[in-house]
Amino acid sequence: MGDMTPSERLAANAATEGGFDRDTTYVEDRITADAPPGGPTGERVGQMVWPVEPGRYRLVAARACPWAHRAVIVRRLLGLEEIISLGLAHPLHGEPSWNFDLDEGGVDPVLGIHRLREAYEARIPDYPRGITVPALVDVPTGQLVTNDFPQITLDLSTEWREHHRDGAPELYPEALRPEIDEISRWIYTEVNNGVYRAGFAADQEHYDEAYDRLWAALDRLEEHLATRRYLVGEQITEADVRLYPTLVRFDPVYHGHFKCNRSTLREMPVLSAYLRDLFQTPGFGDSTDFEQIKQHYYGVHHEVNPTGVVPQGPDMGWLLEPHGREALGGTPFGRGSAPGPVPAGERVPAEHTPLPVG
Amino acid sequence: MGDMTPSERLAANAATEGGFDRDTTYVEDRITADAPPGGPTGERVGQMVWPVEPGRYRLVAARACPWAHRAVIVRRLLGLEEIISLGLAHPLHGEPSWNFDLDEGGVDPVLGIHRLREAYEARIPDYPRGITVPALVDVPTGQLVTNDFPQITLDLSTEWREHHRDGAPELYPEALRPEIDEISRWIYTEVNNGVYRAGFAADQEHYDEAYDRLWAALDRLEEHLATRRYLVGEQITEADVRLYPTLVRFDPVYHGHFKCNRSTLREMPVLSAYLRDLFQTPGFGDSTDFEQIKQHYYGVHHEVNPTGVVPQGPDMGWLLEPHGREALGGTPFGRGSAPGPVPAGERVPAEHTPLPVG
Repeated sequence: MGDMTPSERLAANAATEGGFDRDTTYVEDRITADAPPGGPTGERVGQMVWPVEPGRYRLVAARACPWAHRAVIVRRLLGLEEIISLGLAHPLHGEPSWNFDLDEGGVDPVLGIHRLREAYEARIPDYPRGITVPALVDVPTGQLVTNDFPQITLDLSTEWREHHRDGAPELYPEALRPEIDEISRWIYTEVNNGVYRAGFAADQEHYDEAYDRLWAALDRLEEHLATRRYLVGEQITEADVRLYPTLVRFDPVYHGHFKCNRSTLREMPVLSAYLRDLFQTPGFGDSTDFEQIKQHYYGVHHEVNPTGVVPQGPDMGWLLEPHGREALGGTPFGRGSAPGPVPAGERVPAEHTPLPVG
Repeated sequence: MGDMTPSERLAANAATEGGFDRDTTYVEDRITADAPPGGPTGERVGQMVWPVEPGRYRLVAARACPWAHRAVIVRRLLGLEEIISLGLAHPLHGEPSWNFDLDEGGVDPVLGIHRLREAYEARIPDYPRGITVPALVDVPTGQLVTNDFPQITLDLSTEWREHHRDGAPELYPEALRPEIDEISRWIYTEVNNGVYRAGFAADQEHYDEAYDRLWAALDRLEEHLATRRYLVGEQITEADVRLYPTLVRFDPVYHGHFKCNRSTLREMPVLSAYLRDLFQTPGFGDSTDFEQIKQHYYGVHHEVNPTGVVPQGPDMGWLLEPHGREALGGTPFGRGSAPGPVPAGERVPAEHTPLPVG
């Protein structure tokens, strides 16, 4: 998410008066196991279904974006790397769209486009809303299928089950869905979006409200996670996947850039250990690119950081320190197992992460 | 320091190209023990001497300003509160000057002026440079005497000796002066000014240089202070007074606002304990107003923080935790003693500091 036209940005970010409201209108098509083969089925764009089909779709994400990060993690945990390919947009999107400047010639090698907007407009001419990641794109037609980020990860878990790797974890187990859904809604409003509410507040009053609300939520998480290793149940679920992208961005960008600075996350004993635990788990740390995260936030929000200078810190080496969370019981992947190595073309560069090379 | 006209600010701060250079031209008159009584003596404004005289001068400072903070600390350590009165400017200076909006009616009760600029111009009509604190003002004439901040604190120690309290410490002992002078010069260029160099850098290259240079200095201090309680000798000296204002502002403003964020200062074991030790020493913590410090930096540097929103954090309660520095030997005030309570009119409001009330 996060790409908007200048006027949309003006309406949504810190340049406006008052508080920050996120545009939450998405193209809500779905890819489902029981959709008829071939083209999408349905009456209206945004409410159609597409069939599960290996090799047909491309997940367009950006290392920088917390909403896209979820989908990258889930795809990897479930072993869908060979089934759904991955395109990665540049952290510094210009006005018109996220683009593929990280790729040779600035063109995504599979979709053959320079800007993600092209995929949106192949589906909906003169697409009027923000161009966001994650986006699933139909490779044969180059058309956007969906950018409905909360549904994308759930569907990877439930609709693509036939193609999961051996040992793929149950990220959205039926018995726990009510609990996962409830905590996920709360994480979205209070934490994932809570940091933006603080950072994009245009005046002191809205900022102060956002700050208090955010820290109340983080204190609650600190307590909740003190006695259990994961948010829900005894293993990693969709809920942990949704919390992680915000926590791992906290010290590098939200603490200073968004003024969420009661303390660093590192200084919160429980959340710090919980984050280290996840970071050290395959799929989490190995999909985290601190350099691109900082480039994006400090480089795109001119209304917050006019010079565009990107801070060198913080040193995130502490994420590799022991976390001691094993003592709380549970296992990361339940009856499943950890995913294997990251595919060669998808590795985060060594200079962008504290993880050991290789 | 820090007050400039818009064009001077443009020339000095982040709005310019390249690196940050501080204007270091001051009015270098001095108040000395052997100056003839009466008016100032000398041939040129800026090189004249004024006599030591209790009740004659007013120190104008601002809680926000690190350069003024030094003078407030030294005045209190030496017990000069009854000898040289204190005026405190508002943390948010507008374009023309630091002003007295904290005082009733916006007027300093002793000098009877609204803007510090009036005292500068009473001495030098159409004063062309920045209006800075600390400033010593001659109360009878309302004229600026000096704003030469590095000399002001030394002269309080050496020229006003006759009026020091019983038990006043030797902040600038003769035997240690070469060592104090040397480390003070280094602290000025590498630390005091080093944070500004990072924060006001207009491009990535200058910022990166400034960041590396600053952290090299902080690493050196971390090592230097690991085995001794104070910077020079066995007690607090002028050198510690010069380092403290930067360290105590580090986590609240320099870490985020100036992007000095390799880690918080709190996370550096030695510097954190050294800072706690000083903060808990009378004269240091009781002269530190975190609220005004944050109001100033986040409210004045629009080129760094366009919204002017002031962060609520960080929680600085950790400054009251035990520091364990007594084990390194030394005593804060040598053969002297701690100053008594802060005069009633000069206390930092309880809501601006983690110190206990009263």
